[in-house]
Amino acid sequence: MNVLSIQATLSEQVIAAIRTVIGSDQAVLHQPSFNGNEWHYLKECLDSTFVSSVGKFVDRFETDLATFTGAKYTVAVVNGTSALHIALKLAGVQAGDEVLIPALTFVATANAVTYCGATPHFVDSEERTLGVDPIKLRDYLKNHTEQRGGQCVNRETGRIIRAIVPMHTFGHPADLDGIMVVAHDFNLALVEDAAESLGSCYHGQHTGTFGLMGTLSFNGNKTITTGGGGAILTNDSELARHAKHLTTTAKLPHAWEYRHNEIGYNYRMPNINAALGCAQLERLPAMLAAKRELFQRYRASFNDVEGVQLMVEPAKCQSNYWLQTLILDPEQADNRDNLLKATNYAGIMTRPAWVLMHELTQFSDCPRMDLSTAHSLVQRLINIPSSSSLVTRAS
Amino acid sequence: MNVLSIQATLSEQVIAAIRTVIGSDQAVLHQPSFNGNEWHYLKECLDSTFVSSVGKFVDRFETDLATFTGAKYTVAVVNGTSALHIALKLAGVQAGDEVLIPALTFVATANAVTYCGATPHFVDSEERTLGVDPIKLRDYLKNHTEQRGGQCVNRETGRIIRAIVPMHTFGHPADLDGIMVVAHDFNLALVEDAAESLGSCYHGQHTGTFGLMGTLSFNGNKTITTGGGGAILTNDSELARHAKHLTTTAKLPHAWEYRHNEIGYNYRMPNINAALGCAQLERLPAMLAAKRELFQRYRASFNDVEGVQLMVEPAKCQSNYWLQTLILDPEQADNRDNLLKATNYAGIMTRPAWVLMHELTQFSDCPRMDLSTAHSLVQRLINIPSSSSLVTRAS
Repeated sequence: MNVLSIQATLSEQVIAAIRTVIGSDQAVLHQPSFNGNEWHYLKECLDSTFVSSVGKFVDRFETDLATFTGAKYTVAVVNGTSALHIALKLAGVQAGDEVLIPALTFVATANAVTYCGATPHFVDSEERTLGVDPIKLRDYLKNHTEQRGGQCVNRETGRIIRAIVPMHTFGHPADLDGIMVVAHDFNLALVEDAAESLGSCYHGQHTGTFGLMGTLSFNGNKTITTGGGGAILTNDSELARHAKHLTTTAKLPHAWEYRHNEIGYNYRMPNINAALGCAQLERLPAMLAAKRELFQRYRASFNDVEGVQLMVEPAKCQSNYWLQTLILDPEQADNRDNLLKATNYAGIMTRPAWVLMHELTQFSDCPRMDLSTAHSLVQRLINIPSSSSLVTRAS
Repeated sequence: MNVLSIQATLSEQVIAAIRTVIGSDQAVLHQPSFNGNEWHYLKECLDSTFVSSVGKFVDRFETDLATFTGAKYTVAVVNGTSALHIALKLAGVQAGDEVLIPALTFVATANAVTYCGATPHFVDSEERTLGVDPIKLRDYLKNHTEQRGGQCVNRETGRIIRAIVPMHTFGHPADLDGIMVVAHDFNLALVEDAAESLGSCYHGQHTGTFGLMGTLSFNGNKTITTGGGGAILTNDSELARHAKHLTTTAKLPHAWEYRHNEIGYNYRMPNINAALGCAQLERLPAMLAAKRELFQRYRASFNDVEGVQLMVEPAKCQSNYWLQTLILDPEQADNRDNLLKATNYAGIMTRPAWVLMHELTQFSDCPRMDLSTAHSLVQRLINIPSSSSLVTRAS
């Protein structure tokens, strides 16, 4: 038996287990790495003078993304938030609607709903996936909504619940089979927030390709980065065409005339950011392998630490292990803040999950179901250093 | 007398006058150039791994922009449209309001108004500046609005007219003195759309620094570019703080907690785009000098061409001459499309001004004043090749 588990505090044990894997240097939560063609493509982009929203790297990035994810169409945009805004809009979300999203998510999911003039409606998560709990949700919808003319109406508010947006938390796929059946049975458009799950598959299919549309993020803290960036995935050619139109200035093609036929959003990803993305995508398989290796090393290292579990990808799923996640046992929940303090003080960057959405002032009046699992999880989740480069560094 | 002016068509004369200046090569309307530290700074940015929304280049770009424009505070964002959205929001524009904007503008000005849930209200321009005509506007507001509790109300619609957004067309400053007095007298917030006028001054002061806030664009077609990018200018520290907060995810500072206290928009400019911007800004004075030189050469060349005038900066103003502009004499208006065809066919990229905003389907129901000057102008304006590199190329 490990001597630490008898004598050391939980914080000391966790720090030791992390140090075993990453060594003694300071470590941030997630750091990008640029060891491939990034430099080469950026130079090529500059030399072409096409750095803005038209250029070969944007087209190539979209093609490469489609190939990697298996989505028929992709549209590259300035970030994951803007991708979600347009996906929700094209899913038919209108002012006055409600949209079901997990309370346990990053704030962008909720913000994008409000950009459409709609109201987030918060649902609970399950511990197994950290994503939307379809069994609990079905029960809730049965009791709190009714179908009127093929639309799901919230009995209490009288508003149409137009869509559901599961989010694949820290890269772990939510229960898509269960969620798709609920979406179908209650007439909800399914839009996947796959901001965190590039490289994660559910039953062999890439996350973000199950719903009407899915969205990705390439922010600096994600598995791959374009500086700032995001993408919309869809298998519907008309939705793809429309998404591209709305993410530009919605200009009609003409040799010189400037005529626009809709409100556009100017969300198109610049070519220079896409140049970075093309190089990063080439290295994605290697980065995913490194992140999986990091998970294996953490698993071995945390095997003897009592009171915490390392989050493992759900059954039949392949997680990208974007952020490695510790889940404290319920009786250790009170230790979370001490653990955060001790690790960060020791130069090991860790963080808790986000404050639950309904606990933010701006969303405190939004409708919600019982959120007991999300509440429990948020008190017990801690993300630990997860960069793919940690594997190389420690080797 | 030039033989061409007797025998040649207007199109032939215009093509010859342009060729005299730019030589016989093909020419696009506006092309960026990257002859300074662009490459060096991009490399430094990659090597630092800080490519996203935090990094030294974003901070430096904001500081350098403040120094160049004389604005006390600047906030760098993903594009000019997003800058305008946030500026309007912070100027108090709310759902149900109206905002006065020129009918003769790029569609982004109108789109940004709608993002706030407000309605554009179109006003006329004057031929001298190509910008909002304050004398005509004052007369219109006198007859069509009334003051209620310190707010300007449209008598016909009953809606509050919250703000006015002059745009400095093709880089030529609008009549800011006149517009500021109208804004003051009718209780309108003044937000300047200076997307096209980086480097343009009105009575010695940089455009975009006269109103409550001003906005810039660094799109690929602008005087300097960051791939995609924009900025908010203001002299008010609280507005600047709030703009920065809203253009991120509105997160409260904390070592690890993710708590956001407002709806944020995730509009922050990535560090990699700012790296490009820092290098471009260093070269801005030289590019402005080259664009002015290009204007002088065009002026000499078009001196003998009857039927068109080259747009000259308004009195006491310094224009950046972003896009060189021909104004056809009224009797030549019918020749505009022939001229566009002939020049583009000859490999000289030209374009007309934008279709007027109220003629776009999505804005056809918006309120508007008499727009006869804008109508006349839009039938007579043609932009001709304007890249600063044309001066170097022709030398």
